Amino acid sequence: MSAKVTGAARYTDDIVLPRMACGRILRAPHARARIRAIDVSRALATPGVLAVITGRDLETKYGILPWTEDEHALALEQTSYVGEGVAALAAIDEPSARAGLAAIAVDYEVLPAVLDPEEALAHPEIKVNPSAREGNVSKHVDLSFGDVEGAFANADVVIEEEYRFESNTHAALEPHCAIGDADFDGNLTLYSSTQVPHYLHRALAKVLGLGAERIRVIQPAVGGGFGGKSEPFDLELCAAKLALLARRPVKIRYSREEVFYAHRGRHAMKMRFRTAAARDGKLLAVQSKLLIDGGARSSFGVVTTYYSGQLLAAPYHLPAYAFNATRVFTNKPACGPKRGHGSVQPRFAFECQLDELADCLELDPIELRRRNALGSEVTTINGQAIGSNGFRECLDAVERASGWREKFRKLPFGRGVGVAGSTYISGTAYPIYPNEMPQSAVIVKLDRSGQVVITSGVSDIGQGADAMLARIVAKELGCSLDAIRVHSGDTELCPVDLGAYSSRVTMMAGNAAIEACASLKERLGDIGSDFAGAVQRAEAKFGTLVGVGGYRTKKLGGDYRGGSIGASPAYSFTAHVAEVEVDARTGFVHVTKIWVAHDCGRAINRTAVAGQMEGSAAMGFGEALFESHAFHANGVHRGPNLLDYKLATTLDSPELEALIVECPDPAGPHGAKEAGEGPLHPSIPAIANAIYDAVGVRLRALPFSPERVLAALKGRKS
Amino acid sequence: MSAKVTGAARYTDDIVLPRMACGRILRAPHARARIRAIDVSRALATPGVLAVITGRDLETKYGILPWTEDEHALALEQTSYVGEGVAALAAIDEPSARAGLAAIAVDYEVLPAVLDPEEALAHPEIKVNPSAREGNVSKHVDLSFGDVEGAFANADVVIEEEYRFESNTHAALEPHCAIGDADFDGNLTLYSSTQVPHYLHRALAKVLGLGAERIRVIQPAVGGGFGGKSEPFDLELCAAKLALLARRPVKIRYSREEVFYAHRGRHAMKMRFRTAAARDGKLLAVQSKLLIDGGARSSFGVVTTYYSGQLLAAPYHLPAYAFNATRVFTNKPACGPKRGHGSVQPRFAFECQLDELADCLELDPIELRRRNALGSEVTTINGQAIGSNGFRECLDAVERASGWREKFRKLPFGRGVGVAGSTYISGTAYPIYPNEMPQSAVIVKLDRSGQVVITSGVSDIGQGADAMLARIVAKELGCSLDAIRVHSGDTELCPVDLGAYSSRVTMMAGNAAIEACASLKERLGDIGSDFAGAVQRAEAKFGTLVGVGGYRTKKLGGDYRGGSIGASPAYSFTAHVAEVEVDARTGFVHVTKIWVAHDCGRAINRTAVAGQMEGSAAMGFGEALFESHAFHANGVHRGPNLLDYKLATTLDSPELEALIVECPDPAGPHGAKEAGEGPLHPSIPAIANAIYDAVGVRLRALPFSPERVLAALKGRKS
Repeated sequence: MSAKVTGAARYTDDIVLPRMACGRILRAPHARARIRAIDVSRALATPGVLAVITGRDLETKYGILPWTEDEHALALEQTSYVGEGVAALAAIDEPSARAGLAAIAVDYEVLPAVLDPEEALAHPEIKVNPSAREGNVSKHVDLSFGDVEGAFANADVVIEEEYRFESNTHAALEPHCAIGDADFDGNLTLYSSTQVPHYLHRALAKVLGLGAERIRVIQPAVGGGFGGKSEPFDLELCAAKLALLARRPVKIRYSREEVFYAHRGRHAMKMRFRTAAARDGKLLAVQSKLLIDGGARSSFGVVTTYYSGQLLAAPYHLPAYAFNATRVFTNKPACGPKRGHGSVQPRFAFECQLDELADCLELDPIELRRRNALGSEVTTINGQAIGSNGFRECLDAVERASGWREKFRKLPFGRGVGVAGSTYISGTAYPIYPNEMPQSAVIVKLDRSGQVVITSGVSDIGQGADAMLARIVAKELGCSLDAIRVHSGDTELCPVDLGAYSSRVTMMAGNAAIEACASLKERLGDIGSDFAGAVQRAEAKFGTLVGVGGYRTKKLGGDYRGGSIGASPAYSFTAHVAEVEVDARTGFVHVTKIWVAHDCGRAINRTAVAGQMEGSAAMGFGEALFESHAFHANGVHRGPNLLDYKLATTLDSPELEALIVECPDPAGPHGAKEAGEGPLHPSIPAIANAIYDAVGVRLRALPFSPERVLAALKGRKS
Repeated sequence: MSAKVTGAARYTDDIVLPRMACGRILRAPHARARIRAIDVSRALATPGVLAVITGRDLETKYGILPWTEDEHALALEQTSYVGEGVAALAAIDEPSARAGLAAIAVDYEVLPAVLDPEEALAHPEIKVNPSAREGNVSKHVDLSFGDVEGAFANADVVIEEEYRFESNTHAALEPHCAIGDADFDGNLTLYSSTQVPHYLHRALAKVLGLGAERIRVIQPAVGGGFGGKSEPFDLELCAAKLALLARRPVKIRYSREEVFYAHRGRHAMKMRFRTAAARDGKLLAVQSKLLIDGGARSSFGVVTTYYSGQLLAAPYHLPAYAFNATRVFTNKPACGPKRGHGSVQPRFAFECQLDELADCLELDPIELRRRNALGSEVTTINGQAIGSNGFRECLDAVERASGWREKFRKLPFGRGVGVAGSTYISGTAYPIYPNEMPQSAVIVKLDRSGQVVITSGVSDIGQGADAMLARIVAKELGCSLDAIRVHSGDTELCPVDLGAYSSRVTMMAGNAAIEACASLKERLGDIGSDFAGAVQRAEAKFGTLVGVGGYRTKKLGGDYRGGSIGASPAYSFTAHVAEVEVDARTGFVHVTKIWVAHDCGRAINRTAVAGQMEGSAAMGFGEALFESHAFHANGVHRGPNLLDYKLATTLDSPELEALIVECPDPAGPHGAKEAGEGPLHPSIPAIANAIYDAVGVRLRALPFSPERVLAALKGRKS
């Protein structure tokens, strides 16, 4: 497990195969254009160039969701954003590849483009995405639960405000990288820095027209995902196709600039929230209207649109709730899932609104949240079945640890504290493509040496999936952690797991691992102190010892638990308190500390859970203060590099204190729930609320840059 | 399966790991010496040298058979043959490694040595192998079945002659190569060109003192084994130890010279055979006395000694049989198993003797063999339970194909034909280390893509083990061969198989594969034409589809089948006719053609079976005519390179015609028996007998060099 610390981990880009060629993708320079013609003849004649492909070589559409397959590996007639791939090639080395790219002639007819969702809705004739059914609407969801209008009519207090969430991106340290390797029998191996080997496997088969049984996807060590590697990317399909054509391994690695254009990060949202409450602070209804900037492709957009509303119905009891969300196509790189997919933005809005409500009612905002807490074993207004719920414990923990009562509204001007809460899912009930097969499976093989070998399709993307499986199996079998080897992320060796997204891995693969151990435990009988001896006795009696386990979402009353998109087997809960210092002269916000309490059900690996809590909070902090994935009017990114894109470094980050709360969930493996995404959500509103406590201004738009803070302070003074 | 043809196969030496160091072994220049001291200080100070080890660093004894563990990775007090390792080192590159080796100072006290078994027996005070219990005897077996003396007393005719079989070696194209790779958690991966990953796994754990559960042995593509990679070798242990010390991957690859000194090839034997027969040619008794030159270590010698007698009791019915075999230690590299282990030498002697008997009785030698053929479903005099038996069909096939009746004793002087027969085992009843666990296991996993993934510990050493498993599973499951992927030769990923030796793989792993498919077939139900669809339906119903199968030798009447060393689940049968032209002026023997009929039970892969038959016959041909693994009086090899060691090339080899005979055996998978070793045996005596037919001289010593043929012709004339 020390491979990353010691530098021994082998990432995709570390892999060197014999005769490996260098692949590159040519990208469109226009936000929207028609491709009149592409001439690759000079590129093919360039010394060292082995193969060149264009959109026609990979015509089949694909997409992560089967209902919205709107992607081509390379553009066909039209390009829809700056950075869209239009051609690709493989060459014997990088200089030849560059020379080859420069020799490709693309004849573009530049077309008008829309870069803003409102503009896109106003101009349906500028069709961003040809597959959109209606103008530039990507997805529209309008759902209402309970008597919303009645609740607003009878409320003691109604707060209504608009909030804006800037787009931001994952910026994982490892750029996307893929290696295609085809053998002479027509079998393909694709190495890729992906979070979803299984979906990539399916996409490769579909787009290449190759039997899926001929394809192997291997996911080497991944240097960060955060949702940014959760769907098939052009480089994977191009590396595969070029390898088949060139009959050599072909590696394509994104430049950092390409990573920014590949994006699939956090959606910008314009959000209007209305909250109705009684005088005692009890929430009566919440209503939201969300305008979501989707970029040019669907990506996970259908899910984003649902999540933006569905995941807000906890951790507070809402007697009535409605949301109206519209995702719009714009001529920019597609947005997709980033840590806390779909719900980070509305959570920011709503937790700020709760702070305003508490202020209005002169209630302590922690007390307001406590009064509205849902509790455990309840069903939300939108039908989500909550199991364990440690939200109150989280509130207590951050209140106590932060010295809240001594600080809130009591610190001198320029210093303040803020609180926020949240909930998140532990995987979703539905697989992305509808089927009745297990969402996750684990095979455990015992060797007579006492070695325990786990194979599972889970993707360890740095979140510790492999270590999680090892710990669960060690506990189940009563063996030493040292005896365990985990092989994961290989579609050929491993049974299917759907991938590392939606915080599903521990819940699903963990349960599958427990099931895999059950029959082994039976065969092992009384282990005693000699594990290898017990294995040998059992092997002599029963033959090779292999246990297989799977995970299917449990059905409740004939339907999957919760029954809707966003429904999960279990829900995590989080509360943060942030403390800030605001320099009223410069507008600079210094976050001194964030206390992060998170109910992860059961911490299978306390270090990993604390790491996820700290990492999530730090990422939220960076989004709150610095990050801006923004574009010039011509569709060119404002700073597609790690100098201009202000990712928070360890030097920028606040002190973080992880307060692990354990409320074991009956659905979780050993009671565990998610910990990797939930703890990001409250960072942003907690900081916003702390800024209000410090200097009395409400920031309703991200990031909380010095300019924005200064502007707000001026508005307050005026 | 085209990897070897297209050059894509990755052998151990093709593997390059980051920061990999070059390892080398320093070897003793004396046949027998005491090591007074080794000074490695100058080597350690040599630039680029990372680590140096001597015998003291790997003190624990090991050996392939648990009863005769007499090896050290590097010599301790005494060296016992030229080429024995005394120290090893790892350096950043090869020049540094050479410089480091040159800087190691070993102070030897040269001791008297014995290079010949008779000399060794005469001088027990010159103790070759300190672990020998009694003088220089490595193993003595003296077994008698039936009334041998009575049979000889009542025989119509008795033939008695002495035969000598020169030592020869495997000379696989790929030299032995190993890479040790230790991680910072103390886990070791060893890549090795081995035929026995499982035994290597055990030896590494034992010698390194590392838990076996921390060790992974990976066998990449192997460029030929033939028995020469069937036990742990010094380079494997040294590469592992050096990797642990240097904290870098360490690769050691034998030079061609080192391969010759590593040896473990065919034992030289001096063999006296007596055969008693009735006038009609019916055999009454056979008695042999064998003196076996073992070299300095036990290796598989116990097995060799048994096999040299036990495997002669078929394919002819012997009413009485006795053998007395003594393996002797000499100060030369150890002999071990080479294709046809233990029985090629006595088979040469006995089949020549049968030719002499036929001659004496004026019987056609094929007819003589036919009259004595055992038949099927019988038990030999030494208790071996024969199942199917296609020996008569083999005799018929070569008789017909070769035009025997028109040629035998009818060709002009200088041209002749000869026949010989043989039998061989399909694995042995006992594992090498006694245990009740399966000898082989196979796991078959079905992916919802329709891909079928086989994992098995079998070692594909070029013999086609992987393809054999694929074909069996394809037939069992009714899927396409294209859908099958085989992962083998990896102790971590694969369930245990004991290795590629004794022609056990098809019999044992093949049966395990059938067993693994049984439960899958049940779950798949009616497959129809859409295999992937059937898998998906079954996976939805039963979860991930994994089948596990194993092979245990069947017990008959409470004991393992046959009950003795050399007993096998099934026996193959072979007959050859060789046609030769002998130049009486030069003594040069030109073998024009060998007809090879072999009863392999059922040919699972006809191309592979024919390839094994042709390859075996060609190898026997080379042993008969050219090869000589011989030593100078000082223990130095006479020609440890592929120029001096006259390996037969394709240009030298005769035309070969493989006549596959299929007599399905109830014990074999789909009826299959071995095909990789049996077809070697008759080549040598068939050629000898053909030389007699051509020029009337009996050659009773190998190789049939021009000198030896000329000398025999002179003896005949005189």
